[in-house]
Amino acid sequence: MSVTSLASQLQGLAPADGSYADLFSSVLPAVIDAIGEIASSLSTAHRVALAGTANTFGDDQLNVDVAAELVLRNTLAAKCPSVVTASSEEDPVEKPVHSEAAAVATRPEHCYTVAFDPLDGSSIIAPNWTVGTILGIWEGPTAVGQPAEKQIAAVLGVYGPRTTAVVAIRLPGSSKADAASSICLEIGLGQGQQASQNSEVLRSSVRLAAPPFKTRYFAPANLRAAAQDGRYMALVSNYIQQGYTLRYSGGLVPDVVHALVKGHGVYVSPVTAQSKAKLRQLFELFPIALIVECAGGLAIDPADGSRILDRVLQGTDERAGLVCGTAEDVEAVKKALLA
Amino acid sequence: MSVTSLASQLQGLAPADGSYADLFSSVLPAVIDAIGEIASSLSTAHRVALAGTANTFGDDQLNVDVAAELVLRNTLAAKCPSVVTASSEEDPVEKPVHSEAAAVATRPEHCYTVAFDPLDGSSIIAPNWTVGTILGIWEGPTAVGQPAEKQIAAVLGVYGPRTTAVVAIRLPGSSKADAASSICLEIGLGQGQQASQNSEVLRSSVRLAAPPFKTRYFAPANLRAAAQDGRYMALVSNYIQQGYTLRYSGGLVPDVVHALVKGHGVYVSPVTAQSKAKLRQLFELFPIALIVECAGGLAIDPADGSRILDRVLQGTDERAGLVCGTAEDVEAVKKALLA
Repeated sequence: MSVTSLASQLQGLAPADGSYADLFSSVLPAVIDAIGEIASSLSTAHRVALAGTANTFGDDQLNVDVAAELVLRNTLAAKCPSVVTASSEEDPVEKPVHSEAAAVATRPEHCYTVAFDPLDGSSIIAPNWTVGTILGIWEGPTAVGQPAEKQIAAVLGVYGPRTTAVVAIRLPGSSKADAASSICLEIGLGQGQQASQNSEVLRSSVRLAAPPFKTRYFAPANLRAAAQDGRYMALVSNYIQQGYTLRYSGGLVPDVVHALVKGHGVYVSPVTAQSKAKLRQLFELFPIALIVECAGGLAIDPADGSRILDRVLQGTDERAGLVCGTAEDVEAVKKALLA
Repeated sequence: MSVTSLASQLQGLAPADGSYADLFSSVLPAVIDAIGEIASSLSTAHRVALAGTANTFGDDQLNVDVAAELVLRNTLAAKCPSVVTASSEEDPVEKPVHSEAAAVATRPEHCYTVAFDPLDGSSIIAPNWTVGTILGIWEGPTAVGQPAEKQIAAVLGVYGPRTTAVVAIRLPGSSKADAASSICLEIGLGQGQQASQNSEVLRSSVRLAAPPFKTRYFAPANLRAAAQDGRYMALVSNYIQQGYTLRYSGGLVPDVVHALVKGHGVYVSPVTAQSKAKLRQLFELFPIALIVECAGGLAIDPADGSRILDRVLQGTDERAGLVCGTAEDVEAVKKALLA
């Protein structure tokens, strides 16, 4: 592990004018601690995962989802006075993080709301594939009715052979989420109770590569939709003809992180009349879009080609499809699917 | 963890006539210990994995591969007097496990050779996806020149959010690897130095399901080959039209284990003139085939449709393609690709 702790590395990245001070000093370290604790719970959850094999799996809520949500809520309550509300994909209502007395006692000058999918990828927990946590951090006490610019940071926790995290922060005063006005880090988590104390920054600038690409990857989600949509089928055939490499775990976190780590990738989850939109704007699409754009990529809605981060969140249960990853590939998908 | 240790659970499965006694009492527990130790190494190998992102990745040997091989060789040397030789995908030559003096001192009545791929899935280590160990255990001091029946057991170690293993044993006196004459277990590993001491059997009978199937899965490996082979492209289109669910991590261990845990799946890795056979018979195909057939499935060579386990191993570096999983799906692939 590095000599400098992650917490002080994060503080070193905070804007000099003091904005987002709590984000760097308490919120992000607390989220890393929670991811470490969820990783630790998962590592011994053999029996819980086994229950999932009973063919009632799919999108059913598992015990490990509930456990992960509890870890996140408890950690925020214990360590983040400035996070005043939180909502979860498992319980999509914004609720106070602190008791009323605690909230009055602390009265944060700047406050945040956090929205998370505590354990994304429930269908691949039983076979022991990599799964993840998705989390977005918004300025102010609510995300509802807010434009996506209010989401100032996002975190992906990755539970695999190791525990890693990707953290993206849009710097203050910027409405864009590009490399010049944002930070995107990959973190390697240490083990134990307070992961942020013994974690390290693996890469201080996670960036999708510029062409030419050595290897091009595609992740075709909801592939059954290609049976009903000839444009999606033609897109997939085209990837094969062009020699793209297939990597598709079915977990949104590992699939997106694969592209970020390899430097190239396009994730395609279209929506058709027969297969409805499943991805949640608040808990999945906004955080993923911020991370991908802070890494130099693009994230759009395949229904109309609009940029995910150009939206205003209308409600916690809004859903849509997703195309994200390497910008020029996303543009090509937009042309292909909206032709 | 269960009250009864894994070691005694394994001993309880040993044939009453004393055959394979060492396999159950020392070889399998030692392999589980080694898998636990490899998992522990991987969990902190952030920097080593990072080296893999330098685009020299692909099939290059990584440091973690070397570390995993050392763990396996050292564990066999320390704990398994009956394992006299071992070979590895990283170093495909059968070598003595014990020093000459130690070998003379112990003189096992029954001896074994072990062949393993210490860390399969090097291309997906950097993005923190699940990877695995593949291991076959053969009766006698060599696998070369031996029929596949001499491979009496196989183990897959699965390094994901948890550490799990699938163990298959073909019982003595049987040339077939079906459910009646074999054992196939899923094990959940505990943490710490001697994983076999605090591991537990999660499922004592891993079985692919019989039709009708609730969800059908396909894993199309080497999909670029579909650009050159219209039959493979037609097969993939057919899966999409029939509503199969795509799961393809690109790691042989997680892809096969997905099918075993879900109860259905077909893994297809064809070989064409332009894309050569990459999978090693000794280190990958024979162990995978034994596991899949002990779970009630089928494993064939797509070049001629022959059963992998009907072969005699000619050399440690032999390679081929693979179609394996649910038997009726494998038969359908055979017809489609050899049409």
